[in-house]
Amino acid sequence: MIHRNCFRAVVILLCSLTASSLATAQNTAPAKARARDLGVPFDGTPGPFNAITDVSGVTIGHTTLISGEGKLQVGKGPIRTGVTAVLPRGKESMNNPVFAGWWSLNGNGEMTGTTWVEESGFLEGPVMITNTHSVGVVRDAVIQWRVNHGQPDPTGYWWSLPVVAETWDGWLNDINGFHVNAEHALRAIDSAVSGPVQEGNVGGGTGMVCNGFKGGIGTASRRIDPQDGGYTVGILVQCNYGRRPDLRIAGVPVGREIPEDPAYASTSFSELDRGSIIVVVATDAPLVAHQLKRLARRVSLGLGRNGSISGNGSGDIFIAFSTANPGAAAADGVVDLKMLPNDKLGPVFAATVQATEEAIINAMIAAETMTGIDNHKVIALPHEKLREVLEKYNRLAR
Amino acid sequence: MIHRNCFRAVVILLCSLTASSLATAQNTAPAKARARDLGVPFDGTPGPFNAITDVSGVTIGHTTLISGEGKLQVGKGPIRTGVTAVLPRGKESMNNPVFAGWWSLNGNGEMTGTTWVEESGFLEGPVMITNTHSVGVVRDAVIQWRVNHGQPDPTGYWWSLPVVAETWDGWLNDINGFHVNAEHALRAIDSAVSGPVQEGNVGGGTGMVCNGFKGGIGTASRRIDPQDGGYTVGILVQCNYGRRPDLRIAGVPVGREIPEDPAYASTSFSELDRGSIIVVVATDAPLVAHQLKRLARRVSLGLGRNGSISGNGSGDIFIAFSTANPGAAAADGVVDLKMLPNDKLGPVFAATVQATEEAIINAMIAAETMTGIDNHKVIALPHEKLREVLEKYNRLAR
Amino acid sequence: MIHRNCFRAVVILLCSLTASSLATAQNTAPAKARARDLGVPFDGTPGPFNAITDVSGVTIGHTTLISGEGKLQVGKGPIRTGVTAVLPRGKESMNNPVFAGWWSLNGNGEMTGTTWVEESGFLEGPVMITNTHSVGVVRDAVIQWRVNHGQPDPTGYWWSLPVVAETWDGWLNDINGFHVNAEHALRAIDSAVSGPVQEGNVGGGTGMVCNGFKGGIGTASRRIDPQDGGYTVGILVQCNYGRRPDLRIAGVPVGREIPEDPAYASTSFSELDRGSIIVVVATDAPLVAHQLKRLARRVSLGLGRNGSISGNGSGDIFIAFSTANPGAAAADGVVDLKMLPNDKLGPVFAATVQATEEAIINAMIAAETMTGIDNHKVIALPHEKLREVLEKYNRLAR
Amino acid sequence: MIHRNCFRAVVILLCSLTASSLATAQNTAPAKARARDLGVPFDGTPGPFNAITDVSGVTIGHTTLISGEGKLQVGKGPIRTGVTAVLPRGKESMNNPVFAGWWSLNGNGEMTGTTWVEESGFLEGPVMITNTHSVGVVRDAVIQWRVNHGQPDPTGYWWSLPVVAETWDGWLNDINGFHVNAEHALRAIDSAVSGPVQEGNVGGGTGMVCNGFKGGIGTASRRIDPQDGGYTVGILVQCNYGRRPDLRIAGVPVGREIPEDPAYASTSFSELDRGSIIVVVATDAPLVAHQLKRLARRVSLGLGRNGSISGNGSGDIFIAFSTANPGAAAADGVVDLKMLPNDKLGPVFAATVQATEEAIINAMIAAETMTGIDNHKVIALPHEKLREVLEKYNRLAR
Repeated sequence: MIHRNCFRAVVILLCSLTASSLATAQNTAPAKARARDLGVPFDGTPGPFNAITDVSGVTIGHTTLISGEGKLQVGKGPIRTGVTAVLPRGKESMNNPVFAGWWSLNGNGEMTGTTWVEESGFLEGPVMITNTHSVGVVRDAVIQWRVNHGQPDPTGYWWSLPVVAETWDGWLNDINGFHVNAEHALRAIDSAVSGPVQEGNVGGGTGMVCNGFKGGIGTASRRIDPQDGGYTVGILVQCNYGRRPDLRIAGVPVGREIPEDPAYASTSFSELDRGSIIVVVATDAPLVAHQLKRLARRVSLGLGRNGSISGNGSGDIFIAFSTANPGAAAADGVVDLKMLPNDKLGPVFAATVQATEEAIINAMIAAETMTGIDNHKVIALPHEKLREVLEKYNRLAR
Repeated sequence: MIHRNCFRAVVILLCSLTASSLATAQNTAPAKARARDLGVPFDGTPGPFNAITDVSGVTIGHTTLISGEGKLQVGKGPIRTGVTAVLPRGKESMNNPVFAGWWSLNGNGEMTGTTWVEESGFLEGPVMITNTHSVGVVRDAVIQWRVNHGQPDPTGYWWSLPVVAETWDGWLNDINGFHVNAEHALRAIDSAVSGPVQEGNVGGGTGMVCNGFKGGIGTASRRIDPQDGGYTVGILVQCNYGRRPDLRIAGVPVGREIPEDPAYASTSFSELDRGSIIVVVATDAPLVAHQLKRLARRVSLGLGRNGSISGNGSGDIFIAFSTANPGAAAADGVVDLKMLPNDKLGPVFAATVQATEEAIINAMIAAETMTGIDNHKVIALPHEKLREVLEKYNRLAR
Repeated sequence: MIHRNCFRAVVILLCSLTASSLATAQNTAPAKARARDLGVPFDGTPGPFNAITDVSGVTIGHTTLISGEGKLQVGKGPIRTGVTAVLPRGKESMNNPVFAGWWSLNGNGEMTGTTWVEESGFLEGPVMITNTHSVGVVRDAVIQWRVNHGQPDPTGYWWSLPVVAETWDGWLNDINGFHVNAEHALRAIDSAVSGPVQEGNVGGGTGMVCNGFKGGIGTASRRIDPQDGGYTVGILVQCNYGRRPDLRIAGVPVGREIPEDPAYASTSFSELDRGSIIVVVATDAPLVAHQLKRLARRVSLGLGRNGSISGNGSGDIFIAFSTANPGAAAADGVVDLKMLPNDKLGPVFAATVQATEEAIINAMIAAETMTGIDNHKVIALPHEKLREVLEKYNRLAR
Repeated sequence: MIHRNCFRAVVILLCSLTASSLATAQNTAPAKARARDLGVPFDGTPGPFNAITDVSGVTIGHTTLISGEGKLQVGKGPIRTGVTAVLPRGKESMNNPVFAGWWSLNGNGEMTGTTWVEESGFLEGPVMITNTHSVGVVRDAVIQWRVNHGQPDPTGYWWSLPVVAETWDGWLNDINGFHVNAEHALRAIDSAVSGPVQEGNVGGGTGMVCNGFKGGIGTASRRIDPQDGGYTVGILVQCNYGRRPDLRIAGVPVGREIPEDPAYASTSFSELDRGSIIVVVATDAPLVAHQLKRLARRVSLGLGRNGSISGNGSGDIFIAFSTANPGAAAADGVVDLKMLPNDKLGPVFAATVQATEEAIINAMIAAETMTGIDNHKVIALPHEKLREVLEKYNRLAR
């Protein structure tokens, strides 16, 4: 398989260069509207970017692969996929693990490396998100990245259990063509930056479908009151879950109000909840491992607000980390830590729920209508129609 | 302790006789309005009683203890507490365990017996729910019940790990007076019946506060489409969680629209999420242990719909069981089972989320304004005001 | 400790007179031999008492109830039971929680309060161990203790989820007579002391059977090398598990070499592994919650060394805590912690395995032959025969 | 990386052809001695092959990669690695999932796919075992295998969460050269057979070190008494864990008796427990998911017998499956199952512990002294010396 892919990979890289150019164009283009801009009301106060990167140090990189049109030819395309990298401490993520916890609401999905996260209490390196059939190549590439950039411990042993998650993009993408390669994964890591985060049809989220509309990458953040510590909680989702009739936005049954253009016309797909959602929670609040697992569990409450029932086919897997306590994983002696007491966690929990709720809607607002393999077409959530529905239910924010 | 409490117990029993009379009166009184009657819209189709007892075989018993008024005198009252018993197979619950699974969204609470539920995959006997400080006496009473009614195995060993859960009623009840005794627990078991279920200020839910209003016991059910198996899912909650500003009903921010008469006037209580919610999920769908754990996890999505952030102080603990496969715990040879495949669980998951959402609101609708220790007063959710708010957001069902 | 309680015991329970006298006799008698004294070889270096109390601050209290002889009359006896209290910080345990983690190898048992240990990462108060049917009364008594001794938080709310574990003593004790009462539990707490720990037929371990011989309470400790931090790990077990043919001591198949006088003559009991073992791990190494859970898991390796197969009926439940980081549970602001890095845990893991292996054997060496209900007689592991077997396998230490 | 490896891969394939020839030679060579042949005593009765393949339907395939000598040149070698495939139902594994459960004693390792095993209760496809840095390529190859061999469900969706585990062979193998490719993984699957299983330096176990001696693949089985159902339990390990001083064989401190030729001469490696062990438990007993998780936990007791302390660096991860109930994962209606009651699990638990104990020793007996990168040399456990030590402790079986 890998042999045959060598030459093809070159082609794809060119394609993805196009994708990169496109991405750059997007960055310099007028900012896209986000859910708040359209008048969707949310609880709580976001940070400056309303993004996971509001947590200082966190950087995000995307490799987006879009090429080809028309009928599926396995191995050739059309291609609608990619890789997203979340680096908890930017380039320092490789040498300075963060406390972390993870949790699965419904485990029909993959997040490698979680057994060690659970055991050690640390996330060592980035969180990578891609399509279901590319988890392996991305995983080994993260190890390769480490080998290339040096400073393993003397035995070459550590940081060899990368965290790589996925959702399935086979409705739009030639997923069995295995178009993601190691270079794509390395590029996502190398290109990770702070500041505003691209949302929608980018990175691992490129070919995703969410609540019967086009899904993808979304993000949001919350700034906690100074009297509660002034911490920031940031969320990044790769959303690919849910059925349209279940969709609530700001409590409003939006999915039922917009029945037109179902995502999976004339297939049994519409009856099943085949999708998934990967959620990354970042915070600078000084939380230790078992507390971060508590944060990961709160993600389910944000999903609940948006109407999810977490179907059998949905891989709803969440990981939370704290950028506080740099150096906590040092191995040469007892380390000093800071910890926010359990009794002070309420605002952090609320922020997690609120920002999850918003990040999912942001993903759907940013995503654009896409046509993929076999001319499958998934429409974006129509912005104006959404505003009409919110107005109907007296929930349109001014 | 138990000895010295004997005489006090007599007094309390008299009090609870009064409570029982009251309960009887309620049963013969015109049926109380439930959430649907008031025009709250919900997803899905309920069973005939819209109660956990729509799952055939399930019976519910309450012992309600209400006596005294005015200033708290620890050991004397006022008393606002009780015990609720959920029997999966009615009187047969003692000899015919059910497959079960449990899950904790936030474990600031107690549900005894869960280590064995997790290990064995079975619930052996009833689920009991009471106040936090009475879990022990109720637990041992369940064993006593077994001893009294005979038919343990020859060694007297089995069924000695009762499942008893709790929420904290110390805002209204003299919780440190330890007023629940073994007789109260036995009475809840012995009086359990099928049919309509009393809701609100009854049983273990007597002194509870939920989302800043009076809480208590609530129930709801869903009937699944015949083409999906026609199964029933029933929910019973003892709800005592949440803050009013977070409360959503049918997606509408009801809590913020009714700021009057906060539950915890002039105390730091209002800032903390001190409460808890115990949820029991029953179904006749043929699910085995690991699938029932999946149902238990879905409860969190119902809580999410109603706005919960599951605060640090909240004991949000859920248990799910299936009444299918009677005899599955027989010990004398290989047993035959039926199992619904994972791919068919979607409608069961949806039913669990929907009925949880409704059971909580039913508890709040049924509960009546209560004054307890030190004249603490917690108002019921005002029905007419609720209808006004739903109307404002175009969500009042006709 | 037991001395001072003797007279009080008379007042409280006439039937415990025998027990008290016996205890007194034991205490003034020459110190009992322990496993090492008999030449059983173990790995590692114990602390001064070779007991859990080698971890500074830990105190242990026992209430032992022994009375009656002959035929079982439920409610009258014979009585062979008790309560053991483990206080992580002595009297300060009530106000100064310790980081903790728990784990169940086989959950056919009860340890209340674990849902909150798992969620919060803290153990708040003592660990109590009693018989299966007395968990409830002991649990509520711990709350009563709190109420009696004041200083709850202003709401009276906290520390209401006591940790109480059990093993089943119904082969020797009138377990369905419910002879343990609240006073017994309070006495175990009030009488807890540091220094040497009574082993064998005391406290919660009074009526236990282990590996086909008399079991009960046992303890051991390990002192870690100064270059690895010089920490102490202490173990206390209430051992009631296992079948004689599986028993290994120092790797030697002792159980098969001593087939005489089976514990459960002429019953089907001998075929089942009905027992259980509760293990408490204490350390002064600065470990946080998720690391202590790792310690708890290591207990299973100590059980493995002694030959356990952890039968279906065995409640093998373990809890580990660290006395480091006093004040870590303070709620008024960010707290400072010390943490031993994961890479330094090897010696702590080894100490846990080694001390578990020894504590179980210590329990069996200290326990004495007991006759209980219906003249059931369980012999103690015969010391001289044990030495012969060790000699046969060239494992008798000089 | 992948590009550069294309041509090299050709070379390696040739090398592995050599390896294959070697393997064939071994198969036709006189049978190697196993632990029992040398007089190591074990509990219980093995099946005909004393191998995991005694469980009917289970097949095992190895791809062994051995080439090069001398100094490490990353990307060139020396190569000492491979892939092992465990197919629960042989070729039918792809279309007929088995009930399964998994558990981690110490999670410093990877086993992909476990989140879905936990959620669904099923293992869908093979269990693959390789080196740490090749998990990804093997994982995606399993999906590729599926794509190549057709019959996915109509959406191409299912069976895309392969189970791939690893241990680290970087002491002997050029692990950062990423020499395992997709073809190697496919070959391990395609070549899987029933009957005797190659042990020692083969497949994923090629470059492993265990308890300070050469480790690798080992297997054993137990036949349960007909009166207990007559079931078979089979174990396969890839063992790479532990320190020599901790090693016990049949309870005898063998590791301390053979201090010569340490595995990690003159490195800090000897102080750390860097290794890991992957254990696969197979049975034909009709167990459902939650019961198989109980089996997986028993593996730790087998490790305990052999002296493991499960160091921080050890990835001790276990998966158990049952070949009973074919068709249980069918999706089109309620399925009929057989289940062995919990009360009958004792013999299955004992078999699991006993066969784990033996499979590890079998791996060490079969493994041969190996010299790898930088002339690192790891000696095999010397058979005659082992017999002498057993004799010294009167444990040599006749």
